[in-house]
Amino acid sequence: MSNLELPILEPDAAPCCPPITSAELSVEDSVRMAAMFKALADPVRLRLFSKIASHPGGEACVCDIQDVGVSQPTVSHHLRKLREAGLLTSERRGTWVYYRVAPSAVAGMAALLDLTR
Amino acid sequence: MSNLELPILEPDAAPCCPPITSAELSVEDSVRMAAMFKALADPVRLRLFSKIASHPGGEACVCDIQDVGVSQPTVSHHLRKLREAGLLTSERRGTWVYYRVAPSAVAGMAALLDLTR
Repeated sequence: MSNLELPILEPDAAPCCPPITSAELSVEDSVRMAAMFKALADPVRLRLFSKIASHPGGEACVCDIQDVGVSQPTVSHHLRKLREAGLLTSERRGTWVYYRVAPSAVAGMAALLDLTR
Repeated sequence: MSNLELPILEPDAAPCCPPITSAELSVEDSVRMAAMFKALADPVRLRLFSKIASHPGGEACVCDIQDVGVSQPTVSHHLRKLREAGLLTSERRGTWVYYRVAPSAVAGMAALLDLTR
C-alpha cells in the first residue's frame, strides 16, 4: 500500500470509468477509484456497509448496526471513512444520524469491475 | 484501517456472496472480500490491474505494463499482492511471467456491489 493520501470525495459523486477490460484507468481515475476500494478494504467497515445496504428501507442509524464487535467510537470512525469515500450519505433526524448507500458511487465501482461488457 | 492481517486467497477462488443489499456479510466473508478490495485500494496497483485487464488478449507481462512511474521491483510487489488476493493468475512462458485477471474473483466483487438485484 502506498502512503499516498487518498482524496475525500463528494457524497455519491458520479461514476467515472468504463469497465477495466475496455480501457486502462487514467492516473486521476485510479486515485479516485482506489479511495473507494480502500473504504471497503477493512472487514469491519465492509460489514457495517453491508448492514446498512441490507437494512430494511435501505437505511440504518448507528443504533441499528453497532453489533460488530468494536466500540461505538470505532463504528463512528468507520462510518465517517465510508462517507468521506462517497459510499454513504447521511441525514440527521432527531437524535440519530441515518446512513444510506450512495447508489451511483457503488454502481461506478461495480461497473468498473464488470467483465461482461 | 484495522491492522488485522488479511488472508492470502487461492487464485480465482469462487465468489462468495450475494449482493450487499440482499443480506449482511458474515464475518468470514467480510474478511475474504475486504482482502480483495484492499488489493485494489492503491492507485498504482489499480492502474496495473486495469492495464492487464484491458491489454490485447486479456494478458500482459511485466514488460508490457511497467510505465506506471514506479520501479520494476515495486511493480512486481504490486503484482504479487494482486495475485495473493486472488485477482490475477500468472503463468511463466519463456523469459516472462504473463498475468491475467481472474474472472470469477472479479465477478464476485462486482456481484457484491450490484445494487440492481
